[in-house]
Amino acid sequence: MILVSEEIVDVADHRLCDSALTLAFSVLGKRWNGLILGVLGAGPASFGILRKAVTGISDTVLSERLSELAEAGLISRSVTDGPPVSVSYELTTAGVDLSPLLTQLGSWAREHMQPTA
Amino acid sequence: MILVSEEIVDVADHRLCDSALTLAFSVLGKRWNGLILGVLGAGPASFGILRKAVTGISDTVLSERLSELAEAGLISRSVTDGPPVSVSYELTTAGVDLSPLLTQLGSWAREHMQPTA
Repeated sequence: MILVSEEIVDVADHRLCDSALTLAFSVLGKRWNGLILGVLGAGPASFGILRKAVTGISDTVLSERLSELAEAGLISRSVTDGPPVSVSYELTTAGVDLSPLLTQLGSWAREHMQPTA
Repeated sequence: MILVSEEIVDVADHRLCDSALTLAFSVLGKRWNGLILGVLGAGPASFGILRKAVTGISDTVLSERLSELAEAGLISRSVTDGPPVSVSYELTTAGVDLSPLLTQLGSWAREHMQPTA
């Protein structure tokens, strides 16, 4: 009789996280980022629009997230001379290419996830 | 001359986060969850395999995340009588349906994101 211990099975399974998926979730695995990108999928938006659309986010955290998303190359910030001066955020090509996947994630959640009370 | 202030533009734009996307990121917007689901996309795995595959996660956090993912209905835990007793985690139908989207997210990241040093 052969007893295969969990340890031996573990040693035989050298699975690793996909490096590209790790990269994707370095951005999307942070709270709010997916939602900010989702809102910008509908078109450029000001800070004020984003703050209202992303329910529960604070000004400070929204600022941080916008900087991070810009640094990751997913959104860009543009300033239009005024008066009044207008600042808006919009998706870059990388962000635009992500949009259909966010739509699919929404459809998946609609089918499989239950809203919690 | 008409000056449209940002405030007025904001009032006119009542964009809201898509509720299904909010639901999706209630799970995927937490660190590690996407990666754990990605590893389980290759098949059932023990706690030990997951801990090694998800580089940097602690035992405590992995335990918490596995409980949350099970509660959200994305993975299931099964125990096979021993000896030795074997515990493994695997994707539910909801998790399996998410897998192709995770693969697409990986492809998107491979094309658009730069690994940081």
